[in-house]
Amino acid sequence: MNAATDSFAARLAAIVGRAAVITERSALDPYETEWRGRYHGRARLVVRPASTEEVAAVVRLCAAENIAIVPQGGNTGLVEGQIPDESGEQVVLSLARMNRIRTIDPLDFTMTVEAGCVLRTIQEKADDADCFFPLSLGAEGSCQIGGNISTNAGGVGVLRYGSTRALVLGLEVVLPDGTIWDGLKSLGKDNTGYDLRQLFIGAEGTLGIVTAAVLKLFPKRQDVQTALVALADLETALPLLKRARAISSDRVSAFELLPRMGIEFATTYLPGVADPMVQPHAWYALMDLSTSRPGDSLRETMESLLADAIEAGEAVDAVISGSIEQQRALWRIREELPEAMRKSGAVLHHDVSVPTSDVATFIRRALAAVEAAHPGARCLPFGHLGDGNIHFSICPPVGADDDAFYQAEHRITPLVFDTAVDLRGSFSAEHGIGRLKLDELDRYKRPIDLDLMRRIKLALDPRNLMNPGKVVRVGNR
Amino acid sequence: MNAATDSFAARLAAIVGRAAVITERSALDPYETEWRGRYHGRARLVVRPASTEEVAAVVRLCAAENIAIVPQGGNTGLVEGQIPDESGEQVVLSLARMNRIRTIDPLDFTMTVEAGCVLRTIQEKADDADCFFPLSLGAEGSCQIGGNISTNAGGVGVLRYGSTRALVLGLEVVLPDGTIWDGLKSLGKDNTGYDLRQLFIGAEGTLGIVTAAVLKLFPKRQDVQTALVALADLETALPLLKRARAISSDRVSAFELLPRMGIEFATTYLPGVADPMVQPHAWYALMDLSTSRPGDSLRETMESLLADAIEAGEAVDAVISGSIEQQRALWRIREELPEAMRKSGAVLHHDVSVPTSDVATFIRRALAAVEAAHPGARCLPFGHLGDGNIHFSICPPVGADDDAFYQAEHRITPLVFDTAVDLRGSFSAEHGIGRLKLDELDRYKRPIDLDLMRRIKLALDPRNLMNPGKVVRVGNR
Repeated sequence: MNAATDSFAARLAAIVGRAAVITERSALDPYETEWRGRYHGRARLVVRPASTEEVAAVVRLCAAENIAIVPQGGNTGLVEGQIPDESGEQVVLSLARMNRIRTIDPLDFTMTVEAGCVLRTIQEKADDADCFFPLSLGAEGSCQIGGNISTNAGGVGVLRYGSTRALVLGLEVVLPDGTIWDGLKSLGKDNTGYDLRQLFIGAEGTLGIVTAAVLKLFPKRQDVQTALVALADLETALPLLKRARAISSDRVSAFELLPRMGIEFATTYLPGVADPMVQPHAWYALMDLSTSRPGDSLRETMESLLADAIEAGEAVDAVISGSIEQQRALWRIREELPEAMRKSGAVLHHDVSVPTSDVATFIRRALAAVEAAHPGARCLPFGHLGDGNIHFSICPPVGADDDAFYQAEHRITPLVFDTAVDLRGSFSAEHGIGRLKLDELDRYKRPIDLDLMRRIKLALDPRNLMNPGKVVRVGNR
Repeated sequence: MNAATDSFAARLAAIVGRAAVITERSALDPYETEWRGRYHGRARLVVRPASTEEVAAVVRLCAAENIAIVPQGGNTGLVEGQIPDESGEQVVLSLARMNRIRTIDPLDFTMTVEAGCVLRTIQEKADDADCFFPLSLGAEGSCQIGGNISTNAGGVGVLRYGSTRALVLGLEVVLPDGTIWDGLKSLGKDNTGYDLRQLFIGAEGTLGIVTAAVLKLFPKRQDVQTALVALADLETALPLLKRARAISSDRVSAFELLPRMGIEFATTYLPGVADPMVQPHAWYALMDLSTSRPGDSLRETMESLLADAIEAGEAVDAVISGSIEQQRALWRIREELPEAMRKSGAVLHHDVSVPTSDVATFIRRALAAVEAAHPGARCLPFGHLGDGNIHFSICPPVGADDDAFYQAEHRITPLVFDTAVDLRGSFSAEHGIGRLKLDELDRYKRPIDLDLMRRIKLALDPRNLMNPGKVVRVGNR
């Protein structure tokens, strides 16, 4: 540690307290490491402010010293947006200590939370207040809401409730110069100028640091019915979804796709998971209906929906969960499929979206393209069919070498992305850009998009000190 | 007409055709006049392109000549955003000829429309395709979707479906330099960089011209139940709404507030309108439940909701519409209340919002403030209670002089706005800023908000040629 670092660390300690400035190399490691171990950066130090004012003071100090800041929440991001670069010059600003629920108003259906609140805590506090916060995703036990907001997180509830963007009524942001922007409004309508809030949501910390938010809550769910449906074909998924939305009065809260191979991976690699059906089928939909009305006849609705769907030739078989345990068992297949694939060995993930009516076309084309280029590769397209968001995962052929497969990534991945983008789709539906997908951004976005993004970045962060080298390239980084 | 104008008009005519360039003073008048006749500007000319490419060519020509453009849709805006200034130098660009429905996809629940499509046409086309487009507001017979998007229009469906912002999946925008930005995506999820679409929505044409959009559709409504509920008190409105959302499984699609004086204005000034109840009550809620499920027992749900609400002391009386005609009659009271006030004489409108849990506090405080400052003034707070959005209208005391009342506007209006903003509310919930509310913007926004808006404006429109003098002040205009 040189004298300059020492002095800088001491000045940070004067703001946040000595215990909240981490400089020891071993203690820095968790903040520098992508959680799956795919990428290691090197931080100058980590600072852990406990209040908005402390964040602001830290940012002002860094701005004065021309030091770049990487905001970090639960470190569950999938595109390395939360990890510092290799320079050892960037400060990681952890929001973890800002974890207060400031207020909750069950009549107003709003909740004001600090950026470091863990998503599951927010879900639980909402539930305690007889409300429902619908954002739900695999990492919910450790991800933080500030990160969810900064990445516009998706998950399984988007079909009915929208992405994080739709769930944020107000924001508090520390701007690149350390000014606190107080947009902590809980208004259903406010048309007084540009919606600045929308800019910060999904900006991955490149325009400022989200320190708190007003979240939108919903009436508490009283009943959730889950069914695993064997589809007649991939192409009948969407008519089934349309039928489900109509007959349930738009109370479909999840509609996920699973291929046969997903069931096989789950039953092979996840202890205690069994195929819920006697016969194998090529494609399945996992569907939730949910209601806030006690005594609503949702079970009957689900049964009549499935009977109609089978009669209409959209579905060929179905299992409705009869208990919470069965419900969890069905969802485990979907939720832990990524874990099953990890256990199986190498896997390439692709988080793409296309218009929902093009999902089947996309999958068929991408399957054919991958098979042609890499015969025997095992494709597992699964996920949020109702949003047109498919996680197109690919495992190597049985018996093939994992390393050789990873080396083919640069040939395989463009096949999937090109297919999605050809259908006016997205190469990053919910995971964002971070550092990992900057090359794809250059490849798939038009110059005008990149130019607009750069202009906005420079208008708000002219010295490029907020998470530089993420989302948008400016100058030499 | 001078030679320069002539040459400029001729060059425009070469792009859009001679008939689509209007220069005659009498023909210009409708484009220069705010529809209620409150403001007259003066245009250099009006140009009516028929395609995105024509819009782009017109914008390029104007940019080359340094001529400012005022985009105009149905000219139904309430804050003069669509009207040129008095200089006679600005070009009004009417989107009215861009009125094609490009595509509609009932399986995808999307619709691609051009900016000049009239909102009612869009509603009808969605209905023809067995879908539902929920944006609904008083001017729907003449307002155009481009204007709805540019002003982030609200209306009665926001409680359930969100503002226009929530209904736009993709956008096509002609940028200030004439470049076409193609963001016409119909994706449920797309996290590839800053959400540029959100910037243009609600920017009132100051960052570019919206030429087309992909709209989000919903399953067609099969039953709508309407009730007028006499509230036990203003303070019981919100508990009633919470009860309605829970018992209906969140199928409340409108929840509007009416004061007693609203019923009296409607019965006095609107032919054929009668008080739906025998006894007068101080406050009413007009509520819709709606469902996309055929054969849903929504009538029974409404009945049991109202019985519960009366038993809980939230409501004291209620009328459920038994027919489409009765439904229309109930809604006429709400929809035509502004018309009734107009017929009564002078009226000051205020479109404010507060957190829904503060609506009653806001109304009580604003009523007291106005009564103290202007004894006898008749306040009619009404509107979208479910969104916290109250149209706080004020008519002069009975028998008072209209002109004298209008002259007191500068004393009365701040009382209402100050009260809303003190409760962290908004002085323009759904109508926007335009030209009319620039002074309020300066008064109620913090310097940091104005600074951020200015930076964004200059980043996208450095020469301030897109609807200058609206929303954000730049330089001397």
